[in-house]
Amino acid sequence: MSETGKGRVLALSGGIGGAKLALGLAQVLTADELVIAANPGDDFEHLGLTICPDLDTLTYTLSGLSDTERGWGRQGESWNFMAALGELGGEIWFNLGDRDLALHAERTRRLRAGETLSEVTAALCSRLGIGPRIVPATDQPVRTVVETPDGPLPFQHYFVRLRCEPVVTGFRFEGAAAARPSPALAQALADPHLRAVVICPSNPFISIDPILAIPGVTEALRQVAAPVVAVSPVVGGAAVKGPTAKMLSELGFEVSAATVARHYAECFRLDGYVLDDADAALAPAIEAAGTAAVVTGTLMTDLDTKIAVARTVLSLADRLARR
Amino acid sequence: MSETGKGRVLALSGGIGGAKLALGLAQVLTADELVIAANPGDDFEHLGLTICPDLDTLTYTLSGLSDTERGWGRQGESWNFMAALGELGGEIWFNLGDRDLALHAERTRRLRAGETLSEVTAALCSRLGIGPRIVPATDQPVRTVVETPDGPLPFQHYFVRLRCEPVVTGFRFEGAAAARPSPALAQALADPHLRAVVICPSNPFISIDPILAIPGVTEALRQVAAPVVAVSPVVGGAAVKGPTAKMLSELGFEVSAATVARHYAECFRLDGYVLDDADAALAPAIEAAGTAAVVTGTLMTDLDTKIAVARTVLSLADRLARR
Repeated sequence: MSETGKGRVLALSGGIGGAKLALGLAQVLTADELVIAANPGDDFEHLGLTICPDLDTLTYTLSGLSDTERGWGRQGESWNFMAALGELGGEIWFNLGDRDLALHAERTRRLRAGETLSEVTAALCSRLGIGPRIVPATDQPVRTVVETPDGPLPFQHYFVRLRCEPVVTGFRFEGAAAARPSPALAQALADPHLRAVVICPSNPFISIDPILAIPGVTEALRQVAAPVVAVSPVVGGAAVKGPTAKMLSELGFEVSAATVARHYAECFRLDGYVLDDADAALAPAIEAAGTAAVVTGTLMTDLDTKIAVARTVLSLADRLARR
Repeated sequence: MSETGKGRVLALSGGIGGAKLALGLAQVLTADELVIAANPGDDFEHLGLTICPDLDTLTYTLSGLSDTERGWGRQGESWNFMAALGELGGEIWFNLGDRDLALHAERTRRLRAGETLSEVTAALCSRLGIGPRIVPATDQPVRTVVETPDGPLPFQHYFVRLRCEPVVTGFRFEGAAAARPSPALAQALADPHLRAVVICPSNPFISIDPILAIPGVTEALRQVAAPVVAVSPVVGGAAVKGPTAKMLSELGFEVSAATVARHYAECFRLDGYVLDDADAALAPAIEAAGTAAVVTGTLMTDLDTKIAVARTVLSLADRLARR
């Protein structure tokens, strides 16, 4: 089965779950056929550094540097900086490995020197030998703010410092109104040879919505000729990873792959949806709502399953393109 | 021999050589009898961090964290940050250990939050259990600029990046005109019970002159009632450490302990001078110029010799105070 030579694929991705599919896509496409736009909403300033967790997870995953056991950060990591910072009474709630720190420091130095986040990311990915383009969804700061009954919280304070404990009542994407799609994202969305837009299995509210909040992106997804296909981050009524299930129920939604499909379908034209075998019963209703549904094993526990899901997504997209 | 109970001692210090004497002084004085004011001229901004090498060397030396084998930085240090930064094509000319980095990051965070360098330093020294007060000579930035035939160089670019290779034609202390002595330095200089001012065996041009360039400091040293005593950083016509000898000869001076004494005596009232046995022949001329000279072993190779030099300095100062 040939997956290449059919135009470019644009993937919209958050961190860990999204990066798994991105790695699968990177195996079955040529480097110049894949653009992965990363969620900017998790980015924050900490200890004077600009930290971009989703961009970094994609970078470490596609460069082969990620720690697949721990699930985040770099393999062979050491933690002497954090230990010494703790001794000094510093802020240690956000864990930064000694090697990981170098990525943030170099990015911050380049940003201060006037480079855009796109330029910095391209340079760093090139140094790490990554073929496909990992790009920020925007070069302007877009920061997720989590609304809670006790007031708004910057995303990482909610996510890491408070371990997602506060009840979520909504989200704001600070800076989104003034943001523009990054050059690579804008180019991909406008590409007449675009083969597919893939919404990775990431949290819809905090990983994909910040991208959709960038003026022009949702409009482009409504108008794009290429099929838009999403992979469910919810399997059997639970999130594969992270706070998606807790958020859905706190926001009054059913914790279901169908809820996520409906959320996207309300924003743009969702042509296809890949959901897990455990959720096969949901497929007819999704189809009835106008989205082609494919049921398969979506748990990407190793490289083979990542490749298999990537292939399923691409063949669904190609089938929809032929319609 | 009781060395305590005689009022406060103010030491002016650069990095490594000065820190050796400071450690000796810290052994023979009570914690509240010793204030060590660190040279600000080596400080610089790098990778977004405010780095204060002399303040840090004093901090690591007096907290027992310093690597006495390597001569700088922390013991048990790891270098994974620098290794990863090198892989990313970052600036690796200034070596920063993973643990050391925590000190710079925490200082930078506190400075950005609005604390003064004095406040930050006091907090960090307290966390590390340091008794005597290590203070910056000023809370304003004073940065040494090295004049060379090819133009001016920021100090660390000259010192570390170019390994002191350019010929030195002079120095400027950027920011000095607008600087003020730090509260602790000002208080020590105005203390009616000040026992002695000790000029540590540091490079006069790049470690002590930046302190003297802070408006009010040289004037205070001219007027202070307590004796001012220096220890020579030059032994037998060579510097114990660093570029002092190279600088002296490039600036047209004889590489001699006597040159350093003359340099200080031109700036303020140098009451006493401690020089090495190897330089005994220079003592009569120094005495003739009005400075009491004491000849002793000044190479501080272990804690005992650091204590011995500290005792010699204090007993010389006490002898001069009785005159």
